[in-house]
Amino acid sequence: MRTSNFLIATQKETPADAEVISHQLMLRAGLIRKLAAGLYSWLPLGLRVLRKVENVVREEMNAAGAQEVSMPVVQPAELWQESGRWEQYGPELLRIQDRHQRDFCLGPTHEEVITDLIRNEVKSYRQLPLNMYQIQTKVRDEIRPRFGIMRSREFLMKDAYSFHASQASLEDTYQIMHGAYTKVFTRLGLDFRPVIADTGSIGGSASHEFHVLANSGEDDIAFSDSSDYAANIEMAEAISPAIERPGPSEEMTEVATPGVKSIEDLANFLSIEATQSVKTLIVKGEDEGKLVALVLRGDHQLNSVKAEKLASIASPLQMAEEADVNKVLGASFGSLGPVGLDIDVIVDRSAAVLANFTCGANRDELHLIGVNWDRDCPLSQVADLREVVEGDASPDGKGTLQIKRGIEVGHIFQLGTKYSEAMKAEVLNENGKSVTMTMGCYGIGVSRVVAAAIEQNHDDKGIIWPEAMAPFQLAIVPLNMQKSEAVANCAEALYANLQSVGVDVLLDDRNERPGVKFADMELIGIPHRIVIGDRALAEGQIEYKGRRDEDSQLIPQEDIVSFLQEQLRS
Amino acid sequence: MRTSNFLIATQKETPADAEVISHQLMLRAGLIRKLAAGLYSWLPLGLRVLRKVENVVREEMNAAGAQEVSMPVVQPAELWQESGRWEQYGPELLRIQDRHQRDFCLGPTHEEVITDLIRNEVKSYRQLPLNMYQIQTKVRDEIRPRFGIMRSREFLMKDAYSFHASQASLEDTYQIMHGAYTKVFTRLGLDFRPVIADTGSIGGSASHEFHVLANSGEDDIAFSDSSDYAANIEMAEAISPAIERPGPSEEMTEVATPGVKSIEDLANFLSIEATQSVKTLIVKGEDEGKLVALVLRGDHQLNSVKAEKLASIASPLQMAEEADVNKVLGASFGSLGPVGLDIDVIVDRSAAVLANFTCGANRDELHLIGVNWDRDCPLSQVADLREVVEGDASPDGKGTLQIKRGIEVGHIFQLGTKYSEAMKAEVLNENGKSVTMTMGCYGIGVSRVVAAAIEQNHDDKGIIWPEAMAPFQLAIVPLNMQKSEAVANCAEALYANLQSVGVDVLLDDRNERPGVKFADMELIGIPHRIVIGDRALAEGQIEYKGRRDEDSQLIPQEDIVSFLQEQLRS
Repeated sequence: MRTSNFLIATQKETPADAEVISHQLMLRAGLIRKLAAGLYSWLPLGLRVLRKVENVVREEMNAAGAQEVSMPVVQPAELWQESGRWEQYGPELLRIQDRHQRDFCLGPTHEEVITDLIRNEVKSYRQLPLNMYQIQTKVRDEIRPRFGIMRSREFLMKDAYSFHASQASLEDTYQIMHGAYTKVFTRLGLDFRPVIADTGSIGGSASHEFHVLANSGEDDIAFSDSSDYAANIEMAEAISPAIERPGPSEEMTEVATPGVKSIEDLANFLSIEATQSVKTLIVKGEDEGKLVALVLRGDHQLNSVKAEKLASIASPLQMAEEADVNKVLGASFGSLGPVGLDIDVIVDRSAAVLANFTCGANRDELHLIGVNWDRDCPLSQVADLREVVEGDASPDGKGTLQIKRGIEVGHIFQLGTKYSEAMKAEVLNENGKSVTMTMGCYGIGVSRVVAAAIEQNHDDKGIIWPEAMAPFQLAIVPLNMQKSEAVANCAEALYANLQSVGVDVLLDDRNERPGVKFADMELIGIPHRIVIGDRALAEGQIEYKGRRDEDSQLIPQEDIVSFLQEQLRS
Repeated sequence: MRTSNFLIATQKETPADAEVISHQLMLRAGLIRKLAAGLYSWLPLGLRVLRKVENVVREEMNAAGAQEVSMPVVQPAELWQESGRWEQYGPELLRIQDRHQRDFCLGPTHEEVITDLIRNEVKSYRQLPLNMYQIQTKVRDEIRPRFGIMRSREFLMKDAYSFHASQASLEDTYQIMHGAYTKVFTRLGLDFRPVIADTGSIGGSASHEFHVLANSGEDDIAFSDSSDYAANIEMAEAISPAIERPGPSEEMTEVATPGVKSIEDLANFLSIEATQSVKTLIVKGEDEGKLVALVLRGDHQLNSVKAEKLASIASPLQMAEEADVNKVLGASFGSLGPVGLDIDVIVDRSAAVLANFTCGANRDELHLIGVNWDRDCPLSQVADLREVVEGDASPDGKGTLQIKRGIEVGHIFQLGTKYSEAMKAEVLNENGKSVTMTMGCYGIGVSRVVAAAIEQNHDDKGIIWPEAMAPFQLAIVPLNMQKSEAVANCAEALYANLQSVGVDVLLDDRNERPGVKFADMELIGIPHRIVIGDRALAEGQIEYKGRRDEDSQLIPQEDIVSFLQEQLRS
């Protein structure tokens, strides 16, 4: 492609309303343009990137045995009423009426449509398993669209749905999809983790999210430094410390702690480490009116997802009111502890191995030191209550945990029978008996991958595309091409030569100053750049610079094609 | 691909609600399924065809220098208000509101969005011409969706829009698009005609429609048997007969014609040819209250598009009320004629060369015979008023006209400044003066092409795909594969072999009776089929049949690959 035939729409200024770097760079590099809040047009340069991602996704889905279909964006209300989601789904579901006042919605997802399709087409277990996917425009009416295409109202998704006669078959396909997603993001050259995810209120037995690691991510991901274990921070297990609890060696003693409200205050006041104290949080119990005490090591944070899964605790988790706590425990927040409580006490695994620890005395402005489990207070219930921290042992026993931020770009999910049961999607099994199909669903945010890649790969000059996503693999920048015949000839010959060997090359034949061209090629993130100028050419040389390189290098003209092919291969 | 891994969803019964053959066959062959009125899902088999069409369109658009973009389906009302179409467009424009009660529509077309994009990106004539296209889902809220995907509410369009600093530049791009469309439909293997189309009320200077010829088409296309002249019937010019009008040789005589109301009655009553009579139609004039008489040869039909373009006639064309005709002319319909009229008379070219003709006497139940222009009534205005008929001379002077029905699958249009003027899309010209851009637009109904191809190419067994559109080029049908090792080995080897040389092959490895497999492969329209069975194999032979062939032929096993490659090439 020649820049003279291709819309290069770079901008110098950082757009005022773009908060995140990917949004800024996508606008500045001319990949997208805003049409309205949360609605973007893809310019030719951006669309090339999007299509490259789309093609990798399609190839891997096909290789994994999934079949491509295409379902409408506009969906009839009836199916959503059948699944129950017409009422359950929030206002993100854009509901519309046609000219006959019939209700429809614009699909944010297609479980209902595909379940309807499959229940009509498939009658026997022999036709299963089936895995159908599409790569299609989705609409979600975000209340506050932002971050450009990262949280937009219209976006490109790959969504797949599998149908099975048994849980075992679902698990097979789930593993195949896990592998396919791993191949997709590996091929795209992204640093990512498949993380164990919360299945939330949908139920379902297993779920993984695929996260691209980037400082700007919205989720915290905990992963092992020595294995492929990774989990959403809500789901990462804090395993029991490998040490045994020491026996008591101090007496329990009451100390006055005037003005001490927090663990930090306490540690300062008593000159102790926070790790030697516990904190006691009071939450509402599953039984109305009951309170439950949660005890964690002073430096640890409660993980509400873990807590609300415990049977005795109300879900969603609700902290108790201070007035209620005062009434039941006789003390305010900041002076609570596990000694002498007559409500349920659940102790985090890390707090349960402490000896001679410090805690509130359940009387205001008083604490206890030298406290020991069993001797001073019972240790009846121990559970995993806390968020993992960096340096924790990995739950799979291999290495220690690191924590980074991630951007969710994919999600695989064992749905079970949620939709197939509501919509009566059944097949006859080997005994001629009607059974409800079991389903999985598998999504990739195709347009979101583009933004996530930029969040992970950029510098102060612009985007740095991974090879597989770059709109062009290589840019040829001729200097003074309009005046120097030698430069023009060399550039044109090289352009033709590289194209003939299948390189996706951009020839910057604009009549612009070199500085403008260099800045544009860096901003739009072409991985490889060669510069052709009279001076080097006179010595038979051509300049090469990789997008991440500090310096350029001179390559003999006769070696340039093989040199570039080597660079592109590696 | 193996049928065991691919959803073959053929049906024996013709669906009751499918009126046209393409709709019936797309359902029966399992290409599409109905989700709701005018909304269809594409099954894997159908999507393969759709993608093949899409890819040919994309390749030819890219080859023609157009740049691919992608614009949102959801469009803000503001832009449509700016162009004036928010009010003008009928209820086919599906208007919706988001959660904040802001107005949007689902795009049936993207003139507003692209004009907005280009007016913001392009500032100088030096950046022009630009031709941007997308291949994208469109929504049109048809009042009565029918004919399957031919007239559906959601469909796949290729829409392109070009921007120019001059009319000459627009005309260049228009010609390039004309050529690109010709290549697209030629490559797709369709019998089509680019026809001169009515530019209608949009104005604009030139327009061509691309029609696939098929008996079920909704439009009549007139085309030369000896040149590439083709026009929509409304636009086909009926040129002046090559003969000169003979001089009068009969006296004008009044004859009583009791009960004669039509030309047919008249011809029977007087035993004359309809070609020797004229009929006189009275329409409303451009000036309020005025009537105009249109005179055509008795066997010809009025073309209202031609008539309403004449200055003295009201547009749209309105026939006069019989009461008004009676009052002004003193006679009823059926007894009208050009003699003695004192309203404007416009005579069709073919009627103007008649001599000694028959016409109404402008008195009820009376006609005149032996009438001659000039001698009996003035011949002041002659115009092309009629529809062409088969056998007319082609307007380009080459050959005679044929008329066939066509399905519109593409449309190219010189828009001019309709949108760019309303939306102030301007550039600076070479003199630094602001000028309004001139635009063209170019559409292909990608999903419609699939249906049109079937309308043109089918028989009583099913679809007959043109090679370039076939979901698979070739089907291997092994007989009794599950029991015969020889058949299984031969089928698998050939499958692998053909795939390795790039043939898009379907191996029907289902455990079904031969008759079921044959019927399915014919119904879904695979162009080439080979059958592998024990009996022929024992004699070293494999059976081949092209989808249009009457009989199959036996090919020696060792020659089969080269034979098939030869068939696929031709």
